[in-house]
Amino acid sequence: MTADTLLDLARSLPDIEMDSSAAIRAAYGSDQGPVLEQMSPLAVLWARSVEEVQEILRWASRTGTTVVPRGAGTGVSGGAHATAGCIVLSLERMNRILEIRPDDELAVVEPGVINADLNKAAGEHGLMYAPDPASYRISTVGGNVATNAGGLRCAKYGVTRDSVLALDVVLADGTLVSTGHQTFKGVAGYDLTALFTGSEGTLGIVVGITVRLRYQPVKTCTVAGFFPDIESAAAGVLAVGRARVQPAIMELLDGPTMAALDAVHGSDLRSRGGALLLIQTDGYGAEAEAAVVRAALAALGGTVSLEDNEEALALVDLRRHSRGDAVHTEVRVGEDVAVPRSGLVTYIAELNRMAGRHQVRLKVVAHAGDGNVHPTFWVDAAEGSAGVERLDAALDESISVALAMGGTITGEHGVGQFKLRWLGQEQQAEVQELQRQIKSVFDPAGILNPGKAILP
Amino acid sequence: MTADTLLDLARSLPDIEMDSSAAIRAAYGSDQGPVLEQMSPLAVLWARSVEEVQEILRWASRTGTTVVPRGAGTGVSGGAHATAGCIVLSLERMNRILEIRPDDELAVVEPGVINADLNKAAGEHGLMYAPDPASYRISTVGGNVATNAGGLRCAKYGVTRDSVLALDVVLADGTLVSTGHQTFKGVAGYDLTALFTGSEGTLGIVVGITVRLRYQPVKTCTVAGFFPDIESAAAGVLAVGRARVQPAIMELLDGPTMAALDAVHGSDLRSRGGALLLIQTDGYGAEAEAAVVRAALAALGGTVSLEDNEEALALVDLRRHSRGDAVHTEVRVGEDVAVPRSGLVTYIAELNRMAGRHQVRLKVVAHAGDGNVHPTFWVDAAEGSAGVERLDAALDESISVALAMGGTITGEHGVGQFKLRWLGQEQQAEVQELQRQIKSVFDPAGILNPGKAILP
Ligand SMILES: Cc1cc2nc3c(=O)[nH]c(=O)nc-3n(C[C@H](O)[C@H](O)[C@H](O)COP(=O)(O)OP(=O)(O)OC[C@H]3O[C@@H](n4cnc5c(N)ncnc54)[C@H](O)[C@@H]3O)c2cc1C
Ligand SMILES: Cc1cc2nc3c(=O)[nH]c(=O)nc-3n(C[C@H](O)[C@H](O)[C@H](O)COP(=O)(O)OP(=O)(O)OC[C@H]3O[C@@H](n4cnc5c(N)ncnc54)[C@H](O)[C@@H]3O)c2cc1C
Repeated sequence: MTADTLLDLARSLPDIEMDSSAAIRAAYGSDQGPVLEQMSPLAVLWARSVEEVQEILRWASRTGTTVVPRGAGTGVSGGAHATAGCIVLSLERMNRILEIRPDDELAVVEPGVINADLNKAAGEHGLMYAPDPASYRISTVGGNVATNAGGLRCAKYGVTRDSVLALDVVLADGTLVSTGHQTFKGVAGYDLTALFTGSEGTLGIVVGITVRLRYQPVKTCTVAGFFPDIESAAAGVLAVGRARVQPAIMELLDGPTMAALDAVHGSDLRSRGGALLLIQTDGYGAEAEAAVVRAALAALGGTVSLEDNEEALALVDLRRHSRGDAVHTEVRVGEDVAVPRSGLVTYIAELNRMAGRHQVRLKVVAHAGDGNVHPTFWVDAAEGSAGVERLDAALDESISVALAMGGTITGEHGVGQFKLRWLGQEQQAEVQELQRQIKSVFDPAGILNPGKAILP
Repeated sequence: MTADTLLDLARSLPDIEMDSSAAIRAAYGSDQGPVLEQMSPLAVLWARSVEEVQEILRWASRTGTTVVPRGAGTGVSGGAHATAGCIVLSLERMNRILEIRPDDELAVVEPGVINADLNKAAGEHGLMYAPDPASYRISTVGGNVATNAGGLRCAKYGVTRDSVLALDVVLADGTLVSTGHQTFKGVAGYDLTALFTGSEGTLGIVVGITVRLRYQPVKTCTVAGFFPDIESAAAGVLAVGRARVQPAIMELLDGPTMAALDAVHGSDLRSRGGALLLIQTDGYGAEAEAAVVRAALAALGGTVSLEDNEEALALVDLRRHSRGDAVHTEVRVGEDVAVPRSGLVTYIAELNRMAGRHQVRLKVVAHAGDGNVHPTFWVDAAEGSAGVERLDAALDESISVALAMGGTITGEHGVGQFKLRWLGQEQQAEVQELQRQIKSVFDPAGILNPGKAILP
């Protein structure tokens, strides 16, 4: 059957670039998320135009072949993992910036455009594309839309959804639909743009994106507050809020994270304190706001410095690398819960308690302005299944504690394949059923990225 | 049949407050939108709790009675107009602010809370609920959510959807579902919160709302730029953008609007210029931004003044009254298109051309920061149907020109009943069909606000 399908594919779509070599199938078989069961697609297809995406989807519909869309494969929830008998549809070569309209403060792009490239192009007009996942140099705008990615700047500027004005989407049967508008506001009909945003490739293939651009700030100030421990740093987040300053960036790094960064990058963060609250203010009020932030953090006992441009860039860049690279000697899982802001201090204390109790290692970074916490738990690979069991127990507890505090299992990474196991704890049965029915409206045969994002 | 249904209603829901007197049925028969055909509900029901809403919906489902939800009835698209054989379900008495959590920067409210009341309560903590439709003193937060209302401040702070974190919604069959999260970010599952927001009561009854609060600005500056004509004022909008200032409020008023306000309120706006661009900056950078705004507007030939607090309040308040009250000697329709920002100047010039060509009167205000234009066209009622025909022709042209420029038929008021006639020009057939199917998922029998928001 596999061979038949491949033959049909090659014959039916003679002009579409595709590859079914073992190396390519392996390379496109998973994203950066934990792999539960390694799978390979039948083939990888690279579309170069909207029409090609439509052709591919028509073929997939006709043959009942499942389709896993893929941007850059930097996702960390397994949303782009291959599943049984699927083809992977890569959008990475549809990477043209179609329009930048400075006076309309918007851009129109193909899905495969790298986030950083869009920012560079916008920058030539004094504008920026605000959503900046730490992966902005490697992830695609299409992937960002499909996951509703967050980022550092979204403390002030919002998540991807807040910058998406309109989408062109190819549905499972090859139909092309356009949602949204080229205007900042618009309420004609149900908000399909928001529905597609964050739907992780399960409702349609995003083939065109109109985004709102923001003004590049005229001034940026960076404040580094080093604290003896992470709890006092987390308290700084609330203090800044009470001072009514809305930072553009508000990131929290714990001691183990700083130590890990120091080891790889030769920095000296850990020697400066036990936790770091890294805050950037921007715009015409940046300096005044930075002064208020410094006072608020100093009052909490932080060692506070206003960083010059170079040092600030270096610090923010270090933060962007805080995920670290996978190493074979460790089994490591990064989480992505969000909690109401006032819960930050308690939640991080709880995480440390859990790590102790389950004897797993832990480091924590957080998009603290949004209450979005990224704990990374890990054990030595040498421990085998015993270690993995403790790791799993710690993960489960980190989720249930967050939910009990009114949190969510995923602040920005998406459910993908990996977080499905917790989704039922967050979503009531009636909501699960509504989601399944919505999926059926868009993809009745269920060929688009099955086994991801929603509960079966 | 009507009498039977009423009897059944009274017997089945003995504890629910209801009224079927002619006066009440008339009073709740329409909102502030144009009335195409005057209808009366069978009865008006006031729910006082989530459970009562569920009971009412269960009864409506059982009897196949259509339900028109209603907040304060300030809508201007006829979304709350009664339709044949319906009951009106008023949420105005579910008006408790359930929680304000200052450190979490959120509030939980019942749908009938008046927007201004929420703002007042949040203000006690130095916070605000940002979306501020000009009707904020009289409209409900539930109605704002159901229409995804915009407002003056949404130039900087976004529309209602951008402040809504979570919703409790009663579906057509009485099921209660909770969507969203108590956190600023969250991507678990399809974004049902956004889907309900702006759905105009056609997918479910909003019975609980969790909103994000923002910081009350530490400082606000108001700049009034009077220009010889509206085109030069509109050009000021782009100039401010090029100076990279994001005002909190950026409103445009033309000469006829100022004259109308002067006549009612005794102000002297019209004598100060032919058009007014009213800009408010806020936050720590307010003064620096106001200085940049003044320079940018002066460079365009505007007569620019920095208003003191009292004068500023008065001006913004006048703007909020610019809709004016309906008068019986005129037939008047307000429109709500949005165009890409660079199109503002052209579009407003076109509007004036249309008014001349169709011999109708015109005044224009705009939430100019968002390209959201509110032209009001009117004719003397004494003219009878000849006047109405010219009015209709002008309306139709104002829509088709906006669409040709990449605009939308409704920036913030919603489609309701009145704008259905243009929706097909904006929405492709496939999108219309998706919307109908989504409606069927939530309300298979079609009892919720039929004939509104989506095309049949
Ligand atoms: C070092 C590092 C840092 C990161 N930092 C952040 C961060 O700060 N914030 C954050 O939110 N995430 C972060 N991520 C996760 C990841 O980068 C984001 O989820 C990103 O949006 C994925 O983009 P991508 O192009 O790699 O998409 P992929 O990983 O290829 O795909 C992601 C999901 O979207 C679907 N998809 C992709 N393209 C399309 C399309 N055109 N149409 C329909 N569906 C599509 C896929 O099927 C999959 O379900 C980080 C990842 C790494 C490795
Ligand atoms: C003077 C004036 C100024 C205005 N200025 C603005 C403005 O600046 N920006 C703007 O966007 N609008 C404005 N409007 C329009 C109107 O105020 C808004 O649309 C407002 O959001 C309606 O709220 P409401 O409580 O009056 O709702 P209603 O008019 O009662 O209802 C509006 C729609 O929502 C539905 N609905 C109401 N409550 C619920 C609920 N709990 N659950 C489900 N559906 C529900 C109704 O069925 C109807 O379709 C203005 C109106 C006036 C009269």
